[in-house]
Amino acid sequence: MKGTGRVEAFSDGVFAIAITLLVLDLKVPAQSPLLAGLLAQWPVYAAYLISFLFILIMWINHHWMLEHIIRVDGTFMLLNGLLLLGITVVPFPTNVVAQYVLTPDQNIATAVYTGWFLMIALFFNFLWQYAARGGRLLSKDDHEAGLAGVVTARYRWGGPAYLAAFVLSFIWAPAALAVTFLLAVFYALPHEMSLPGDALSGGQTKVS
Amino acid sequence: MKGTGRVEAFSDGVFAIAITLLVLDLKVPAQSPLLAGLLAQWPVYAAYLISFLFILIMWINHHWMLEHIIRVDGTFMLLNGLLLLGITVVPFPTNVVAQYVLTPDQNIATAVYTGWFLMIALFFNFLWQYAARGGRLLSKDDHEAGLAGVVTARYRWGGPAYLAAFVLSFIWAPAALAVTFLLAVFYALPHEMSLPGDALSGGQTKVS
Amino acid sequence: MKGTGRVEAFSDGVFAIAITLLVLDLKVPAQSPLLAGLLAQWPVYAAYLISFLFILIMWINHHWMLEHIIRVDGTFMLLNGLLLLGITVVPFPTNVVAQYVLTPDQNIATAVYTGWFLMIALFFNFLWQYAARGGRLLSKDDHEAGLAGVVTARYRWGGPAYLAAFVLSFIWAPAALAVTFLLAVFYALPHEMSLPGDALSGGQTKVS
Amino acid sequence: MKGTGRVEAFSDGVFAIAITLLVLDLKVPAQSPLLAGLLAQWPVYAAYLISFLFILIMWINHHWMLEHIIRVDGTFMLLNGLLLLGITVVPFPTNVVAQYVLTPDQNIATAVYTGWFLMIALFFNFLWQYAARGGRLLSKDDHEAGLAGVVTARYRWGGPAYLAAFVLSFIWAPAALAVTFLLAVFYALPHEMSLPGDALSGGQTKVS
Repeated sequence: MKGTGRVEAFSDGVFAIAITLLVLDLKVPAQSPLLAGLLAQWPVYAAYLISFLFILIMWINHHWMLEHIIRVDGTFMLLNGLLLLGITVVPFPTNVVAQYVLTPDQNIATAVYTGWFLMIALFFNFLWQYAARGGRLLSKDDHEAGLAGVVTARYRWGGPAYLAAFVLSFIWAPAALAVTFLLAVFYALPHEMSLPGDALSGGQTKVS
Repeated sequence: MKGTGRVEAFSDGVFAIAITLLVLDLKVPAQSPLLAGLLAQWPVYAAYLISFLFILIMWINHHWMLEHIIRVDGTFMLLNGLLLLGITVVPFPTNVVAQYVLTPDQNIATAVYTGWFLMIALFFNFLWQYAARGGRLLSKDDHEAGLAGVVTARYRWGGPAYLAAFVLSFIWAPAALAVTFLLAVFYALPHEMSLPGDALSGGQTKVS
Repeated sequence: MKGTGRVEAFSDGVFAIAITLLVLDLKVPAQSPLLAGLLAQWPVYAAYLISFLFILIMWINHHWMLEHIIRVDGTFMLLNGLLLLGITVVPFPTNVVAQYVLTPDQNIATAVYTGWFLMIALFFNFLWQYAARGGRLLSKDDHEAGLAGVVTARYRWGGPAYLAAFVLSFIWAPAALAVTFLLAVFYALPHEMSLPGDALSGGQTKVS
Repeated sequence: MKGTGRVEAFSDGVFAIAITLLVLDLKVPAQSPLLAGLLAQWPVYAAYLISFLFILIMWINHHWMLEHIIRVDGTFMLLNGLLLLGITVVPFPTNVVAQYVLTPDQNIATAVYTGWFLMIALFFNFLWQYAARGGRLLSKDDHEAGLAGVVTARYRWGGPAYLAAFVLSFIWAPAALAVTFLLAVFYALPHEMSLPGDALSGGQTKVS
């Protein structure tokens, strides 16, 4: 549990708790009949699903990243801390968008939501850039195999996509949410998960 | 913590948090006298107990499954993510059934509850089928010993049983809840936990 | 993470979450002035402290017990699950006693609280008895050193002490709470933690 | 997971949960327009940020401390438990200061907040002093390298700084909060994290 082990354990804990705390936004409807009350809450379920997939994907990427990092230093822990700050807050903008998406404030609510995702995507990129630049925290093999460049290319589209969703929020909120949802589904699909390093080992991770 | 280690750690975290968050549904009664107020909440306690046992059993099965899986890939992580989505939401239908079981909406409330359990049981089966088909993620020994077939037979009855409880919810809600409770107790009993693989080692798991 | 590793990880998670969720019972006082409002909540703080120490001690004992157990089986996992059920519910009776200790319902509230602790103490004893009987789940060395008998003697007083607190709840609630508090402090003191097995190694646990 | 492993796992869990539960203090504003409602909550965000950084830094220091400790005993576990008690409660004073910082009760609210941080800083110092005195729980190498003295000097300023913030709370609350914020940022910066032991290994921690 020394070295990256505890960073992983702490990060896993934060990801797992944040993803589970989302359920606290699902309130039992007070009005009768129950079925109508449950159905009327569909924006809450939609926001739950998007945020769950988003945190899950971030965790999968974080998991993958730490498999290729063999050292941590103070700067990495600070940047990782900022990423975790972003993740822990997710239930809040999720709740904002769920409550306001059907009101005239839908543009602001959606912008808060997509803007927060954009910020997390940027934090994630900072973290990876810091770890990979010059092979700083990578193993010699991964560095020489050009892992940094390949992965950086892969993450290149995350930032602009969330930026587009953020800008779209001010113009047409439902479209911005649709983009965010499609991004979550797209990244969740397995073909996206077979990253370069995995490809080398046939897309599978051997048990340690 | 590489390989299945972090999938286990993350999944354990989600199971542990979901099972603990159930307590937030237990509210201190506001009306006096206290004893009458506490006793009047019996549906809340019953729902708590069923959901606790359900998550506990799912965790035990998940624990057992991952002991026989030696590789994870992207599809496995996605299917595992869907299972965890199901688990994290459990406090919500638990709360629904606890609040509505004594009202005229009891059929809908019970159907939401048993239907959610049915969906989780299906997710679990998908996950196992994916891992075991052709021995995909199993060790060579387990595959050759025909583990997939034996376990698949065992899980065969989970789906239909929860489907029966779901259908029964619309006819006679108390009976559907009784079935769900009996299923939880039945699967929680140790004889159910001595699965084929365990049997080979005398029903005991050696410390790693 | 195989074998007892995941039972430990899951149990640790549940203990850690239950002990942290206690904070949700600490509400910011609404009435002004703030200082008076904070001070008026002293029963909430007292209940928080007792429950925190109780869960902490249970965790330390659980930690110690699993260091001497080298196998788990289905019955152990079920009994461990019952213990965890008891632990996860602790925030609820804590809240009950905090809100009702200064009302005429103080006897019932205190009985719920001490009765729950009594039940957890019994669950813990069942778990240890099951693991230690005939050295079932212990290492051969620990079994031959008579560990089961020594530890059983140690735990002998936990049950009766909480039973006394439970009975006292119906007679004089403040005294029952004082006993519960003193029990928590007494068990939390380090001399109590130097158990037989630790004594053999000089009261210290070597890093693995 | 034996030895310090489980103390780390349990502590990591508590730190991770406490830092994530802070989000429950972020409530969706009820009044419209949404943007004004969100902006009016700035004290809540500020308190969130300070508390998040504070717990993160405490975790990093705890992580670092346990890397240099090779044994745990009962006293260590009790002192560690007191530190965790302090950490789990953090969401409460965070909520107090967030709700009262713009009211006439701001001095009391700020004193509760900074006073709690002071107490945690003291608990942390007790824990380190206990572990390091005479090299009690350190490895022989670390003890002979004079680690205890170097680190003790480093932690020397934490206590007085939080004491100053506490005293300042009664005089000028905004200044006390500014000091607390600057302390959090200062300790979070990486140069602060390169401790003596890390310096020896080039500021980096090798993966185990």
